[in-house]
Amino acid sequence: MGIIPVILSGGSGTRLWPLSRASKPKQFLGFGTKHSLFQETLLRCRDELFDRRPIIVGAEAHRFLLAEDLLEIGVEADILLEPVARNSCAAVAAGCLRALQRDGEAVVLVLAADHHIPDADEFSAAVAFASEDARAGRLVTFGIQPDRPATGYGYIRPGAKLETTFKVEAFVEKPSHDLAANYVSQGYLWNSGNFLFRAASFIEELARLQPRVLAAVEKSLSAARRDLDFVRLDPVFGEAPSISVDHAVMEHTGKAAVLPVSYAWSDVGSWDAVLDIAERDARGNAVIGHAVIEAGSNNLVHSERRLTTLLGVDDLVVVTTADAVLVVGKSKAESVKELVKNLQQAGRAEATEAQQIFRPWGNYERLDMDAGYQVKRITVKPGGVLSLQKHHHRAEHWVVVQGEAEVTIDGRVTNLMPNQSVYVPLGSVHRLANRGDVPVVLIEVQTGDYLGEDDIIRLEDTYNRIEITKQGTD
Amino acid sequence: MGIIPVILSGGSGTRLWPLSRASKPKQFLGFGTKHSLFQETLLRCRDELFDRRPIIVGAEAHRFLLAEDLLEIGVEADILLEPVARNSCAAVAAGCLRALQRDGEAVVLVLAADHHIPDADEFSAAVAFASEDARAGRLVTFGIQPDRPATGYGYIRPGAKLETTFKVEAFVEKPSHDLAANYVSQGYLWNSGNFLFRAASFIEELARLQPRVLAAVEKSLSAARRDLDFVRLDPVFGEAPSISVDHAVMEHTGKAAVLPVSYAWSDVGSWDAVLDIAERDARGNAVIGHAVIEAGSNNLVHSERRLTTLLGVDDLVVVTTADAVLVVGKSKAESVKELVKNLQQAGRAEATEAQQIFRPWGNYERLDMDAGYQVKRITVKPGGVLSLQKHHHRAEHWVVVQGEAEVTIDGRVTNLMPNQSVYVPLGSVHRLANRGDVPVVLIEVQTGDYLGEDDIIRLEDTYNRIEITKQGTD
Repeated sequence: MGIIPVILSGGSGTRLWPLSRASKPKQFLGFGTKHSLFQETLLRCRDELFDRRPIIVGAEAHRFLLAEDLLEIGVEADILLEPVARNSCAAVAAGCLRALQRDGEAVVLVLAADHHIPDADEFSAAVAFASEDARAGRLVTFGIQPDRPATGYGYIRPGAKLETTFKVEAFVEKPSHDLAANYVSQGYLWNSGNFLFRAASFIEELARLQPRVLAAVEKSLSAARRDLDFVRLDPVFGEAPSISVDHAVMEHTGKAAVLPVSYAWSDVGSWDAVLDIAERDARGNAVIGHAVIEAGSNNLVHSERRLTTLLGVDDLVVVTTADAVLVVGKSKAESVKELVKNLQQAGRAEATEAQQIFRPWGNYERLDMDAGYQVKRITVKPGGVLSLQKHHHRAEHWVVVQGEAEVTIDGRVTNLMPNQSVYVPLGSVHRLANRGDVPVVLIEVQTGDYLGEDDIIRLEDTYNRIEITKQGTD
Repeated sequence: MGIIPVILSGGSGTRLWPLSRASKPKQFLGFGTKHSLFQETLLRCRDELFDRRPIIVGAEAHRFLLAEDLLEIGVEADILLEPVARNSCAAVAAGCLRALQRDGEAVVLVLAADHHIPDADEFSAAVAFASEDARAGRLVTFGIQPDRPATGYGYIRPGAKLETTFKVEAFVEKPSHDLAANYVSQGYLWNSGNFLFRAASFIEELARLQPRVLAAVEKSLSAARRDLDFVRLDPVFGEAPSISVDHAVMEHTGKAAVLPVSYAWSDVGSWDAVLDIAERDARGNAVIGHAVIEAGSNNLVHSERRLTTLLGVDDLVVVTTADAVLVVGKSKAESVKELVKNLQQAGRAEATEAQQIFRPWGNYERLDMDAGYQVKRITVKPGGVLSLQKHHHRAEHWVVVQGEAEVTIDGRVTNLMPNQSVYVPLGSVHRLANRGDVPVVLIEVQTGDYLGEDDIIRLEDTYNRIEITKQGTD
């Protein structure tokens, strides 16, 4: 049996706003890379050391993003959906219990879905090396050799040598700068939040240290419902106390061990971290997308759709998306989180909602909106089927511009080719589907007195969304 | 006879990119103000001192922007259109010759269309005061009392006192910082580039100093064609040497005089100048549009359409438009011009073309574009009529979302209300018009193998554009 990757896809990643939003957080984004951080994490576990079927623990709201990312790189997985977020301890417990259903001797590698470790070979070698102590019952964590006195991470003080790892002497909280320098000089390691252990060892310690977490998660898994490719944990999951693995188990168990590793690692925790891992030019500038930088150095520009230009500025992060622009000094990158919180409190939709909205059948993006109308570009994947639905307050005009759309209106089915259009009257029961091999792209013009996303009555849905939510275009 | 304002609407204002573009330069923009700089200039001349009908000298390409701005504030004017730009001397000559056609004794006030002078009363008082010497034959310029050793302006050394003004002792070029400080301490004045003189006095000096300019402009005016509200100067205008009023006349005439003035004045020459005239909060930040600034001071944000956020940055200018973002350090604001030149050389359309394109009948804006299709929002003013036209390569779908559109397709006229749509087949002869009282807004989806703006055959045009150009949607 290979080591089973347990990948935790929690966290909303607001520190990477405006690219990362609650509706599509950072693990589903790439930062100048081909793959998303979640996909990178999956691809890092392709060594023969690993079981080919990872276990994913993620949010209900992100289920289609998870499925899409997996499909794109051809990985099959057990996807456990949390009805509510309960911090990392409950998520790890769920992953371990699922692994134990497969194999009572399972060894699991618990990974955050949003870390960047470019060298998969070094990473695998470290896991292989640590596995001896893990199989012997140790809860092994990976301690990164610091290259600077970072204040954004917790530290680990390693103690006595075991077979391949070291006993953990102490976990210490995020330090001040001076303290951090002290820690670095004394050989402390960064706590990367990735773990390797026998699932049974972890559950044993959890039973002793946090029995309420274990009880709730056990119940939620045994009452779980299979739904499409997902395992929906029962809402009883919410009864688990919200606590991190570190606070719940690692800091209290006598079995904690650490493997010092020196591979390149980043938790991509803020925009300055993105700059650190990005490819830079001779002036230290990193550009993702269309940007021009004149007379400036050490800037990071992430530009979507439009042209971003910088002139005579240094040490800035500039992020441009369809609906929001952020300009932040590198030294203030950690504070983006607070900025987003303030925007949220001010009721700005840009704080949480991405411009492009992902659905199981594809995605849509608003192109224009004003009194009485709204224009969207809707993309339906091959095989994608929107729900059978109707609206009380809006009529819709669809113009197909790519692919072949199957349109059903009040029971009548027609196929529309590019340059063909159809009118969907107010109140009509309609459905849009793509039975072809290429994506269908259509422009939708909605008119009506109320155009909110909640004016949708679903009558049938391929993706079982009728009970779950009434929100969202289709 | 009142003093006739002659307003020069030249210049492309690239230093205020990306807001200002060659297709809609800075005189047609407001910077947090209700009116454009051109309108502000017109409204500054409402004192009874002035003739009610100013003379505008502007670019052919901007004729509808000029007409629109005039209409909006209810000012009627003679609009002289230059077939090509020939610098300020030829423009002033054209304005003076036009004034002389009205009145051989005309006194003209030559004003740049893109300056900001908030106090119209002080301004009028200065003009009234200077007019005594102007009527006596002096070519009077307005010299601004410097409040700092600016290096961006030319300076004037005043000499002996005349009746109300001073003789000009010397014009000096833009100085270095040290030299500027020297000038300021010696009582030099900024050369504002606005003038007051008898039109005949100027023409007399021009005949002596630059007879070729005068000859070309005289011919171009006598051969000019009236077209709608415009006076189109004959292309012979292009034979005038390209030279500024200062270099051509003011620096060489013995009649130059200067009135020192201390009213607030800005040529709005770059983004730092916009910050200088903008309303600021307690932290020195100025915001136009939707923006949030946290932990930063002395920034200027001009944000169109989307949310712009700044965090932990100072002394920046951030300008966000639909298609481009500029982040520039205040001290580098003067270099935006070079940035734009570089963008132009790199073939970036954003360098010169605005997202919203203005036409005599209204405007349009591209919302989306990809292989085989393009989406636009088209706004037609009440009374606006697009040309009767056809396309060889594209079909169009129109969905009306506001107003009532009159649509003619191959001779058949229909009226479309909001939520009605029509298909314009490839090759059909069609026309769109607004016969109602409210603007018509429609969403156009174009499909075809070629969607360039030059695929338009105009068969009839209310705005006489058939000979002039084949470019542009309608």
